[in-house]
Amino acid sequence: MDNGNDKSVDEANREFYKALESGSINRMDAIWLHEDWVRCVHPGWDMVKGWSQVRETWDKIFQGKQKMRISPENVSVQTHGDVSWVTCTENITVVYEASFDTVQAVATNLFICKDGRWLMAHHHASSIPMVLPDAATDTIQ
Amino acid sequence: MDNGNDKSVDEANREFYKALESGSINRMDAIWLHEDWVRCVHPGWDMVKGWSQVRETWDKIFQGKQKMRISPENVSVQTHGDVSWVTCTENITVVYEASFDTVQAVATNLFICKDGRWLMAHHHASSIPMVLPDAATDTIQ
Repeated sequence: MDNGNDKSVDEANREFYKALESGSINRMDAIWLHEDWVRCVHPGWDMVKGWSQVRETWDKIFQGKQKMRISPENVSVQTHGDVSWVTCTENITVVYEASFDTVQAVATNLFICKDGRWLMAHHHASSIPMVLPDAATDTIQ
Repeated sequence: MDNGNDKSVDEANREFYKALESGSINRMDAIWLHEDWVRCVHPGWDMVKGWSQVRETWDKIFQGKQKMRISPENVSVQTHGDVSWVTCTENITVVYEASFDTVQAVATNLFICKDGRWLMAHHHASSIPMVLPDAATDTIQ
């Protein structure tokens, strides 16, 4: 970690995942910067633009019947001035009524320090395939 | 776009895609910040950590026989101090010897201003499915 701010960024990142587990839109409200230029990519989705639309997607996700347990690991924080971005692996367990699935994703979470608080301005998560390609040239990038 | 710096960030972003099309590792060298804390996620990949490993992945990709044409659109730039992040849709045409595929991805490209130049410190790209989910609750996040 870079500097003294990184501990509070790490806490903001943990709070994001706790909010996601809780299914509480109010907790998500408290974490995000409410600006029309914030962006969010859920795994497998197109980019969602602006807080109003981003909030709607969380709301829909939270209306689902499944419960999630998310354990972030490989957490890395980079802070430059009032901008900080966190990368991590998301270990996600999706619990249904009588079964569960476990998947992994990688995330880029960007926070901005406003009035002494780190607020999320950008979330980009993408699934990691269970079997990684043998050769880089098998993929398009 | 936010401020006067955004034009040069937009140019750095365009240069990244030109380098990707060119298949030149030297052009990619010139674009990236050579630090062990840079990160890169290619579509469908796990996160790659540190310039040395990131460079290796570009090198492998460039050794493939396919050629790429990439047209970024929906470009949005946010600059805070010496950090700037660009979001865009990547329209990717992969050209093989006698055929081609067209795919779309969304990207988060983060740049840091060092000695007056915007250098890439983070790239996270993920594929957009051809058919988007009808309901947010069908997906895990």
